[in-house]
Amino acid sequence: MEFKKTQLDNGLTIVAEVNPSAASMATGFFVRTGSRDETPEISGVSHFLEHMMFKGTDRRTPMDVNREFDEIGANYNAFTAEENTVYYGAVLPEFQNRLLDLLGDMLRPALRQEDFDMEKNVIQEEIALYLDRPQFRVYERIMQEHFAGHPLGNSILGTTESIGALKRDQMQEYFDRRYSPGNVSLVGVGNLDWDAFVGKATEMCSHWKPFGVSRETPSCSGSQATEIILDEKVAREHVAFATPGPSAQDERRFAAELAAAIIGDDTGSRFYYALIEPALADEALLMFDPMDGAGAFIGFVSADPSRGAQAIKIARKELETFQNEGPTEAELKAAKNKIASSATLKGELPMGRLTAVGFDWVYRNEYKPLDDQIDALLAVSAEEVREVVRSFDITSTTLVGLGPLKSL
Amino acid sequence: MEFKKTQLDNGLTIVAEVNPSAASMATGFFVRTGSRDETPEISGVSHFLEHMMFKGTDRRTPMDVNREFDEIGANYNAFTAEENTVYYGAVLPEFQNRLLDLLGDMLRPALRQEDFDMEKNVIQEEIALYLDRPQFRVYERIMQEHFAGHPLGNSILGTTESIGALKRDQMQEYFDRRYSPGNVSLVGVGNLDWDAFVGKATEMCSHWKPFGVSRETPSCSGSQATEIILDEKVAREHVAFATPGPSAQDERRFAAELAAAIIGDDTGSRFYYALIEPALADEALLMFDPMDGAGAFIGFVSADPSRGAQAIKIARKELETFQNEGPTEAELKAAKNKIASSATLKGELPMGRLTAVGFDWVYRNEYKPLDDQIDALLAVSAEEVREVVRSFDITSTTLVGLGPLKSL
Repeated sequence: MEFKKTQLDNGLTIVAEVNPSAASMATGFFVRTGSRDETPEISGVSHFLEHMMFKGTDRRTPMDVNREFDEIGANYNAFTAEENTVYYGAVLPEFQNRLLDLLGDMLRPALRQEDFDMEKNVIQEEIALYLDRPQFRVYERIMQEHFAGHPLGNSILGTTESIGALKRDQMQEYFDRRYSPGNVSLVGVGNLDWDAFVGKATEMCSHWKPFGVSRETPSCSGSQATEIILDEKVAREHVAFATPGPSAQDERRFAAELAAAIIGDDTGSRFYYALIEPALADEALLMFDPMDGAGAFIGFVSADPSRGAQAIKIARKELETFQNEGPTEAELKAAKNKIASSATLKGELPMGRLTAVGFDWVYRNEYKPLDDQIDALLAVSAEEVREVVRSFDITSTTLVGLGPLKSL
Repeated sequence: MEFKKTQLDNGLTIVAEVNPSAASMATGFFVRTGSRDETPEISGVSHFLEHMMFKGTDRRTPMDVNREFDEIGANYNAFTAEENTVYYGAVLPEFQNRLLDLLGDMLRPALRQEDFDMEKNVIQEEIALYLDRPQFRVYERIMQEHFAGHPLGNSILGTTESIGALKRDQMQEYFDRRYSPGNVSLVGVGNLDWDAFVGKATEMCSHWKPFGVSRETPSCSGSQATEIILDEKVAREHVAFATPGPSAQDERRFAAELAAAIIGDDTGSRFYYALIEPALADEALLMFDPMDGAGAFIGFVSADPSRGAQAIKIARKELETFQNEGPTEAELKAAKNKIASSATLKGELPMGRLTAVGFDWVYRNEYKPLDDQIDALLAVSAEEVREVVRSFDITSTTLVGLGPLKSL
């Protein structure tokens, strides 16, 4: 494994973890922009723009883009979240150049009015499909409630209304404000040819004009509100909750990841023994989500309405007990093994490693080989785990219930 | 890569694809049993039994099982389908022996009455959680409708009633009828020590008593029925359809896989251009599912109720056109690249390769290196793709609609 890094004159950074023994390579453009960088008038534009990147450039029609990905057998996609928009693909090494040509070209989209109008309908369909997915609805609401008034509370998809009213020129204006080369990192992993990689990136991206990009990153301790969305069409009670946690720049993130695994991993966790094994809930999870300048623990519980209130009471009690007592040594050791092993297994696949290397770079301008990550994790003490949940107070929860219950 | 194979005296087969350059190893017990091997009285027992395997043995409590998986940092799970139940895990090479000890022990479960009673509630919770997932409900119904009267129409989860009535002794009887060593394959992939693997497997499994196991594998051309499930609580119209296709033992399965990708892959397919791009549906997919002695193409369309009938009409039209004209050379080439590349990418990870090697063995008693699989795929002609859909007639669809529409 070798880490490589360079920067184009316009500010675009190129980093790669080269592994000549891999059978494939993966690459992605990591753009530091997302729903948190939107105003209410353009809510959902980051995600809509991500779709438009696949709709062609001055050189390519929408059909060309699809066809070329298929021709090189790329495993490709893109995603938009609160603070990143990522365009990526994995191919056999011989297609590295063609993949980079395609992705690099795509990132300067034509944004044709007719494609915009057509894709707007696709976005509306995507918003509509979540109507039948209560677990997604409750996730979106908990982010809005917990981060009320904070940019991280912005909706990723936007609403039927905001998307309906959005104009092509507003999207262009957003693009011209956020997609500066200095706000983009090109990341490569796996069996890639570094010189060719930089050469092609220079060809594709060095004409991108640089400009200043800013982002507010206030901290957030959460609204601690409780919201009940009564929906009798839903059969189960779906509950999401959130508490504050360390940010992506905070070294306590390793301790926080361990805390989340011990409390709410899908097997063998405290939630598992307290809620899943005794069949009080069909789902009971806690995840840690570190972001720019702020972080959160996000939990989910889904249960029969007759047991909804009881399940939440138990989940809260588990948070409280953990905060008071911290983890046992045995729990801590098992959680470390679980996370370390899972990172190693995932890291074997270039696609799995891409997001790890990319986000290390985007959030901290650092490269941390997998072994160093694991060492940092193994070094965390039980006291540090207890300290991180206590200092952020994971009992100060914001909560959203969605389903047939009028109260929780 | 080296393929290894042996058999214990009691009939249990052990196969492995050894790859010393991998960072991890994965192994799984592939048991040739599932819902198709059940009678109506014990509907759901295969899946319930899979859960009970994690509830301990004469040597281990339920808690021990969980704890040990965590101690070795295993990425582990199990799944039950119509015709296979698979228990698997991936670990760093140094934990190979402990993983095999645990999995091997688990496969002779204690089936304690108290654990059975407790886990029955967990299963009921799992059945209940699908109430809020229309896409799962419609999948279960299309299998029941298409394979009406055929064992592949049996429900995997069973019903609240069948699970409620199930007795521990019926589960034991099912176990004693299906879990013969001759009906089980132990599969390993990745960086594994073959001699130690066989040694440990012998220690764990050679005392398993052999007995005869049978399975009926009639072919099935599908009921071609249409069923409308009116459910006004669901916002979108969810439609599933099925047509006959080649079995897992039929060499035409490669052509069928290509046909499904060209017609209904999630991007760049005919369904994509006819339904997703013009925003007539939020989902439009076609998959090929080859099984023991019978196969099927399974499709899904989800759309706004006002466009439900139109979307299905268009999907049917696409099936008809494809059956008449076959694929273009460009479509065929792109689909080959896509599938070949995706198999290579997935094959890099031991966990990804495990199911491929395992199912080749279970269904065909063969080992096919990835390169041979890809060669077989690349050799398929446009005429063969056209011929496979025509000979099975993919226009003879069984269809299930779930949602607010009274007719389709």
